[in-house]
Amino acid sequence: MNDKLNGAEAMLTSLVGAGVEVCFANPGTSEMQMVAALDRVDGMRPVLALFEGVASGAADGYGRMADKPAATVLHMGPGLSNAMANLHNAQRAQTPMVNLIGDHASAHLQFDAPLTADIKGQAKTVCHQVKTCKSASNLPHDAIEIVQAAKTNEGQVCSLIIPANTAWEDSASVEVTPIQFAKKKVPLLRIQAIADILKNDQCNAMLLGGKALREEGLKAAGRIFKATGTRILNETLPARRKRGAGVFPTETVPYLAEIAIQFLKPFDNIVLAGAKAPVGFFAYPNVPSQLHSEHTSLPLLCAIDEDITDALITLAKILNATEDADTQPRITPPAPRNELCPMGVGAILAECMPENTIVVDEANTASLAIHPMTQGAARHDILGLTGGSIGIGLPMALGAAIACPDRKVICLEGDGSGMYTPQALWSIARENLDVTVVILKNNSYAILDLELQRTGAKVAEGNASKARSLLSLENPTLDWIKLSEGMGVPATNASTVAQFRHQFSQAMNTRGPRLIQATLIKVDLAAAMAELMKLQTP
Amino acid sequence: MNDKLNGAEAMLTSLVGAGVEVCFANPGTSEMQMVAALDRVDGMRPVLALFEGVASGAADGYGRMADKPAATVLHMGPGLSNAMANLHNAQRAQTPMVNLIGDHASAHLQFDAPLTADIKGQAKTVCHQVKTCKSASNLPHDAIEIVQAAKTNEGQVCSLIIPANTAWEDSASVEVTPIQFAKKKVPLLRIQAIADILKNDQCNAMLLGGKALREEGLKAAGRIFKATGTRILNETLPARRKRGAGVFPTETVPYLAEIAIQFLKPFDNIVLAGAKAPVGFFAYPNVPSQLHSEHTSLPLLCAIDEDITDALITLAKILNATEDADTQPRITPPAPRNELCPMGVGAILAECMPENTIVVDEANTASLAIHPMTQGAARHDILGLTGGSIGIGLPMALGAAIACPDRKVICLEGDGSGMYTPQALWSIARENLDVTVVILKNNSYAILDLELQRTGAKVAEGNASKARSLLSLENPTLDWIKLSEGMGVPATNASTVAQFRHQFSQAMNTRGPRLIQATLIKVDLAAAMAELMKLQTP
Repeated sequence: MNDKLNGAEAMLTSLVGAGVEVCFANPGTSEMQMVAALDRVDGMRPVLALFEGVASGAADGYGRMADKPAATVLHMGPGLSNAMANLHNAQRAQTPMVNLIGDHASAHLQFDAPLTADIKGQAKTVCHQVKTCKSASNLPHDAIEIVQAAKTNEGQVCSLIIPANTAWEDSASVEVTPIQFAKKKVPLLRIQAIADILKNDQCNAMLLGGKALREEGLKAAGRIFKATGTRILNETLPARRKRGAGVFPTETVPYLAEIAIQFLKPFDNIVLAGAKAPVGFFAYPNVPSQLHSEHTSLPLLCAIDEDITDALITLAKILNATEDADTQPRITPPAPRNELCPMGVGAILAECMPENTIVVDEANTASLAIHPMTQGAARHDILGLTGGSIGIGLPMALGAAIACPDRKVICLEGDGSGMYTPQALWSIARENLDVTVVILKNNSYAILDLELQRTGAKVAEGNASKARSLLSLENPTLDWIKLSEGMGVPATNASTVAQFRHQFSQAMNTRGPRLIQATLIKVDLAAAMAELMKLQTP
Repeated sequence: MNDKLNGAEAMLTSLVGAGVEVCFANPGTSEMQMVAALDRVDGMRPVLALFEGVASGAADGYGRMADKPAATVLHMGPGLSNAMANLHNAQRAQTPMVNLIGDHASAHLQFDAPLTADIKGQAKTVCHQVKTCKSASNLPHDAIEIVQAAKTNEGQVCSLIIPANTAWEDSASVEVTPIQFAKKKVPLLRIQAIADILKNDQCNAMLLGGKALREEGLKAAGRIFKATGTRILNETLPARRKRGAGVFPTETVPYLAEIAIQFLKPFDNIVLAGAKAPVGFFAYPNVPSQLHSEHTSLPLLCAIDEDITDALITLAKILNATEDADTQPRITPPAPRNELCPMGVGAILAECMPENTIVVDEANTASLAIHPMTQGAARHDILGLTGGSIGIGLPMALGAAIACPDRKVICLEGDGSGMYTPQALWSIARENLDVTVVILKNNSYAILDLELQRTGAKVAEGNASKARSLLSLENPTLDWIKLSEGMGVPATNASTVAQFRHQFSQAMNTRGPRLIQATLIKVDLAAAMAELMKLQTP
C-alpha cells in the first residue's frame, strides 16, 4: 500500500492552499487522476461544463467577480481549442485564471496518438504565461507558480500543461502558500506630470479602463472631475464596471467608430488610466483606425497592467481633490410602447433590477439601446465583451453566480451569440444558480446587418440574397423556450412590454435559474442608427 | 463607377473555377466583403453554421464524401479557435479543406483592437499549410494555391488568412484553373519488397488506413488475402470505410489497448498500408504505448500521405492476386431484448439501413457494441472520429449530406459528445437534409466511466463523489427532444426495441431531418467489458 499523495493530489492540495477553490471542468481520460483527486482532497468545488468554452467563460466571470482565479480543467489540445475563444476574452479582460490542461503521459507523446497536438503552441496565443510540468514532484510547485502568475499585475490568464504520468506518479511534496496579487505601482513622477496636465485650462478627459471602473477608482475619478472639470470616460467594453444610482457616472466611448470620432474630437488631452488608446473595433474603407483627433494628446497615467486604483487615489490627492462629485440619480424611464423593443427591455430592467445585481452583457446591437435606459437603475456591476469574441455571455453568468451566490445575476444575451455556448444553461440548472437569462430575440445577426451597411458592400435584395441568408436566423427560427427547457432551465416567452414586465419582475422576486425569451419587434436599422447617434452623443 | 472585381469577388470566382462549390460559414465584420460577393459571383453554395466548430466539422464530412475541398469562412482568431477542434480531426483524417479566415485590414493590426489575435500561430497547430494574403491582386492566386495545397497527397487542411482590405480593394486578375489531386506514388521497389514478405510462410497481416478502406482498396486487399492468407486489418477510427454486405470484411484493431495487444500478438509482420503503427489511444500506468509485440515487424507499404489505392492494386498484381475474396454476407442479428441497449440499436440498424447509407459514428462506448451488429448490414460508408476530439458527429452529418444529397445519412451520436456542437441540428433543418440522428442516451460520459476504471484511480462511492459528478449527465438530464425541436428538427423518444424499430424504420422510409432519442437501459460496465472482450477478439 502507498500512502503518498500522487501528483494530482499534491497539486490539488497546493491549489486549495493557494486560494483556488472552484474549477470549471470538462475532463477526459488524461485528466482522470485530477478528477479522482477531488474525492480525496477537500476544498475544491468542481463544476461540470458540457463544452470547454463554457468552462473558460465561466472561469472568466468568476475571476472578474471574485478577484481571484478559478481553475479550468481541459482535455488536451482539442479541449484547449474549444476553450480558446473565451480565453481570448479573458486575456483582454486581465482576468486572473489558471488552466489545468492534461496531456498524454510524456513517454506516450512520441507515438503521435490521435489526440496529440501542439498544446503549448495553442496556449501561447491566448495566455499571458504557459508552463509544462516535467515531473510529479514538480507539479505542486508548478501549480503554485501558475497561481502566482495569474495574480500578477492586474490579473493574467495562465496555463499549466500536465502530462498524465505527472498526475499519477508519486509526488514528493505539497506546498501550501497563500498568494497575494503582485501589483506594479505607477511611478509618482508620472502621476505628478498628469496632475500638471489636468490643472491646465485645456479641454481634458480621462479614459478609464480595467479596475479604474470599480467603486474606489470611480470615486477618485469623480473627485478629480469635481476639482478640475476633467471629463471622465470609460472604455467601450469594460471587463467590469460599477454603474447606476449612487455611482459617479462615466461616459462610454461609443462602439461605432464614426460616432466615437465625433465624441472624442473636442479633447486636447485624453489621459489613459488603465485603458488603451481608443481604436476602431474594426477597420472600414476610408475610416481612420485611431479614434482621437490629430490635435489630441494621449498622456499615460497608468498602463493596463499597472495598479490603477492606487494611481487614481494618488492623483486625486496630488490635485487636492477631496470633494465627492454628484452621483447618478435613480431614474426609471418609461417603457416606450407596447410591442417589445430593446429600449422597452431596458426600461423594465431599470424599473425592476434589485440593488447589487450583476449584469452580464452580450446583447450586442440590443445593448446599444438598453444601456442608456439602465443608466439610472439601482447600482449594479456590468460585465462586458472585452475581446469581442461572442459566446461568453451565458458562461460568464454561470461563473459570476458561482462567485457571488448572494447576488442576482442577469444575462442579456443575443439569440445569435447565445447559440455559441448554449450548454452553459445546463450547468446553471445543475448548480441551481440565481441567474435570469434574457434572450433578445430578433432572429438575425443584427450586428452584422449593421456592419454589412457600414462596409459599403452591395448585396441583392430580398430572399434571393445568399449574403442576407448568412445574417438571418430565420428558417427555422430558434425556439429558446425549448432549448432552455431541454437543458433544465424553466423558460417563458414575452412579446409585449406588459408580458416582459410581469415575467421579469417575477424573476427578480424569486431565486433560481430562469430564462425569458424577449421576442423583439422588427427594427429599421437606418432609423435606429439615427436614434443611436442622438443617444450616444454626450 | 467601378466595374473591376474587388479581391473578395476575384477570389470567389477563382475558387469556383477551381471546383470549390460549397462554403460552411460563420462570418463577421471582417468577412462582409466575402459575404457580399456571394450575391455577385455564381456557383458557390453558402451554408450558415451557428458555431464555427459546426462549419469545420461539416467541411470535414463534405471533404471525406466528395473527395474535394469545401471552404469554411471563419471570423478572425476567435472564429478559428472555435473551429480548431474539428480541424484537428480533419487533419488526422487527411481531409482536403480550405479555410478562409478573415483578419483586420493590414493597417489596422498595429492598433491591437479587441479581436486581434495570432491567427497564423493558431492555424499552424491544426493545418498542413497556412498562408497570409498580402494584397487584393494576390488574393485570387493565393486562393488557387491553397486549393492546390488542399488537394496534395491524400488531402490536406489548409488555411488562407485574408486581411479585410485585400477583400475590399480592387483585384488585378482572376485565375480559373481546375485543380487535380497531386498524388505521391509509392516506389515500385518498396511494393516488391512487401510482396516478398507476404509470400513467406510467417503469420502476416496488413493494416489498412485512409483511402485503402474505400471500394477499390478493399477489393485489392481482398485479393491479396485470397492469394496469400494475409489477414487484413483496419485502423481503429478510419476517416471513411466501406463496409457491409458485398464488401470484403476487414478486422478492426480494437480501441481498448489491453484487447488490441492480445489481438495483434500473433503476427510476425504487420504491413502498414496508409496506417500508422498501432498505438494506444491514451497511456495508462503499466500498459505499453505500442500495441504490437516485440517480435512483430512493421514493414511500410505506404505512408498516410502516399497514393494508397495505387499501391494496393500494384501489390495485388505483383502477387498475381486476381481472384476476389469472399465478401461479407448479409446478416440481420436478432435484437437481444425489449429494453433498448446499444446492441439492440445495432440490430435494428442492420435490419433497416438502406443500401448506400452514410453512417457518421460518434457514439463512442455505444459504438463498441453497435459495430459488431452492423457488420452484415446493407453496404454503407462509415465516418469515424479520426482525431479523438468529440463534437464532430452532428457537423459531419451535415457536411456529408450536403456532399451526397441522394444518400441517407445516419448520425450515431452520444448524449455527451452531441452537446459539443448541437448547433449543427439547426443547419440540418435549414438545409432540409436527409439526416436521421440517433442520440444514444445513457446520461453519462460512459467512455469516461470506463476510462476512470482503466486508470486505476480510486474514487468515492455514490452521490457523495465529486469525481463521479463530473462524469454524469444527470441532474438535470438532457431532453434531446426539446433541444432538437428548438432547432427545428422533429424528434421522438424510443425506450424499447419496438419503439426504436418503429421510429427508425419510419425514418428510413421517409426523407428529411429527424432525431430519435434512444434512451438506453443502464449497463454494468464491468460485465459489458467482458462481453466486449469476446466480441472484439477475432
